[in-house]
Amino acid sequence: SIQFDPTTHPHRRHNPLTGEYVLVSPHRTKRPWQGQTEAPQASNLPQYDPKCYLCPGNERAGGAKNEPYTSTFVFENDYAAVLPPPGPGAPPAPHPLLTTEPVIGGCDVIIFHPRHDLTLARLSIPDIEKVIAQWCAVYDRRGHQEGIEYVQIFENKGSMMGCSNPHPHGQSWSLSAVPSLPSTELTNLKKYSLAQAQTSSAPTGPKGRPCLLCEYAHFEVGVPHEQGRVVFKNEHWVALVPWWAIWPFEIMLLPYKRHVPSLLSLMPEEKHSFAEALSNITKRYDNLFKCSFAYSMGIHQRPVPRRADLPPLAELEDEDNVAHLHLHFAPPLLRSATVRKFLVGFELMAEPQRDLTPEQAAQRLRGCPDVHYLDTLE
Amino acid sequence: SIQFDPTTHPHRRHNPLTGEYVLVSPHRTKRPWQGQTEAPQASNLPQYDPKCYLCPGNERAGGAKNEPYTSTFVFENDYAAVLPPPGPGAPPAPHPLLTTEPVIGGCDVIIFHPRHDLTLARLSIPDIEKVIAQWCAVYDRRGHQEGIEYVQIFENKGSMMGCSNPHPHGQSWSLSAVPSLPSTELTNLKKYSLAQAQTSSAPTGPKGRPCLLCEYAHFEVGVPHEQGRVVFKNEHWVALVPWWAIWPFEIMLLPYKRHVPSLLSLMPEEKHSFAEALSNITKRYDNLFKCSFAYSMGIHQRPVPRRADLPPLAELEDEDNVAHLHLHFAPPLLRSATVRKFLVGFELMAEPQRDLTPEQAAQRLRGCPDVHYLDTLE
Ligand SMILES: O=P(O)(O)O[C@H]1O[C@H](CO)[C@@H](O)[C@H](O)[C@H]1O
Ligand SMILES: O=P(O)(O)O[C@H]1O[C@H](CO)[C@@H](O)[C@H](O)[C@H]1O
Repeated sequence: SIQFDPTTHPHRRHNPLTGEYVLVSPHRTKRPWQGQTEAPQASNLPQYDPKCYLCPGNERAGGAKNEPYTSTFVFENDYAAVLPPPGPGAPPAPHPLLTTEPVIGGCDVIIFHPRHDLTLARLSIPDIEKVIAQWCAVYDRRGHQEGIEYVQIFENKGSMMGCSNPHPHGQSWSLSAVPSLPSTELTNLKKYSLAQAQTSSAPTGPKGRPCLLCEYAHFEVGVPHEQGRVVFKNEHWVALVPWWAIWPFEIMLLPYKRHVPSLLSLMPEEKHSFAEALSNITKRYDNLFKCSFAYSMGIHQRPVPRRADLPPLAELEDEDNVAHLHLHFAPPLLRSATVRKFLVGFELMAEPQRDLTPEQAAQRLRGCPDVHYLDTLE
Repeated sequence: SIQFDPTTHPHRRHNPLTGEYVLVSPHRTKRPWQGQTEAPQASNLPQYDPKCYLCPGNERAGGAKNEPYTSTFVFENDYAAVLPPPGPGAPPAPHPLLTTEPVIGGCDVIIFHPRHDLTLARLSIPDIEKVIAQWCAVYDRRGHQEGIEYVQIFENKGSMMGCSNPHPHGQSWSLSAVPSLPSTELTNLKKYSLAQAQTSSAPTGPKGRPCLLCEYAHFEVGVPHEQGRVVFKNEHWVALVPWWAIWPFEIMLLPYKRHVPSLLSLMPEEKHSFAEALSNITKRYDNLFKCSFAYSMGIHQRPVPRRADLPPLAELEDEDNVAHLHLHFAPPLLRSATVRKFLVGFELMAEPQRDLTPEQAAQRLRGCPDVHYLDTLE
């Protein structure tokens, strides 16, 4: 019988976080591309743009004026997707299949830096630490608000990812409900915690029970580089192209030395090496195709911080503590600065399909320098 | 307390086919758009393009030559995502979390018409009937091949949906596994069939048990237009913007008069009114923003046809018969021919979010003429 070769034979890989599969068709990279190409991101942006609604001191679309901020700056989104309480009660369902759940919450914009022309990849480590401090502060503040059950911090970078302003910024949407994807992840983390026995020397979750992500990261860190999926690793964090990656150069970034339920559990040295890891992988991304690499990034963790007013539950009874902090990077570029992967057709109607293996992607990213290409040009 | 208003209050709607939610934030349509705009699809295409690899008689990338076909034409994809048997056996998993499932199968390209400049919206009803006949033939042929467990027919239309050639065509990917999304839909259809009692006069599935989609379509057809989600309806088919639609002008097209497991169950008059419905909704789509409207379309049905060599199971024991034929249209445009919705950031990391309500979308589509705008210009 034929010997399986992941770089030749189409196959499916299972994502234990979502329960879904991805179809891997590595031989498809040979296909010529005559379709849409992307406009490369402008690389000669000014440090200050008088028309940018995120630059310090400028007026925003809603009419409010930004402070003349000098490091990070957080404000409430002028076009929030969810609105503050009081909200209405649930309306009657016109049919049992047609249900409505009112949602309240708040949306924040988190500006990373006053300079219009920078990105995470071009910020200093101390500046990235300030961004991390703001993520922690937003999660803490919003997560303690009455009625908030979930805080989603994310960044859309690049116009091909629907970002309408290159000024370095991310967002945070806080809601009265746990959204579909993190809810599925939490369910699967919980199932794993209860059903599996700890067999490795990986860190464990609450009550010494196994943690799917601690176990997975621990395994990946031990695989020899040439066969593996690790892109970068420091004392506390590992960045890897997950076994089940959907996007061509998808990365998961997570702490691998101990179970960390949320941003608020991070110790100062872990925050520092978090900043270092963010800097490293965003530089590699930019270097891959010598462009400002577009992506969507999202932070998954405990839905909200532990509330002081809740009774001190046994750790494992508190199902939110099965969460292990991790970041997903979903970048669309596939072949060059202008040729992306489209997740359409088969992907939308059946299941995601990828063209190169996660191992090939990790190898490419490991091969990229970790000094930003713009800093090596004279 | 506040009275719920779906066009003002952010809310979540549940999708019973997938078990997931969509966040509806209708007030977000007021937000100004300064982000990426799309190049409008070329509207002055030649009837024949010597460089098109799908035009009759032309050479393809792989070197093969198209027949000088005069109606539809089907050939095997030169860059197939899955390959024919024999495939390898499953390799050992390096870790229980890292599993691999080899996949075999075949990919077909289904050309709708010899003319390079046409689309479904501009084909005559008899020409669309020929396309439907090819969909039936591909499903029948591939679905009876050894080892094939699922046939996915779909169309990517428009460069913004990753389509690399405007020549009117769709695809069919046939696999040895049921992909994630249809698998979830089938599970939920089956659960509904077994757990629910029939309470309405909707058509029923096998053994007289309720069918989620028959029930849903039956309900929607009965809602007065002004409040409803129906876009178009004829003797057999209804096109509606589902209660749980993700894409701005998403449509589900399905038969509503009887339970129809697959394309092969359609009677001649049902095929005729299927063609009529396809023509009607694709014309409305083009008319909405006066452009060739981009979308991904997918046909969901029984994973494969009933096999003659299988023992005649009781209808409900055959779990694939809980399928009810339906088509999903996922079009990205939101505001104009050049401003799309990006499902990024929050959508990728948390859950889909939409800006106008399904009822508002249906009303807009109902308001569009069903004569193609290019046919009303002089
Ligand atoms: O097969 P095509 O048309 O070359 O490619 C297109 O459709 C495929 C199936 O939906 C996708 O995987 C590709 O990303 C897309 O560009
Ligand atoms: O909020 P923004 O940056 O204006 O908008 C962007 O991010 C949102 C959250 O991911 C998406 O819903 C929008 O489609 C996208 O264009």
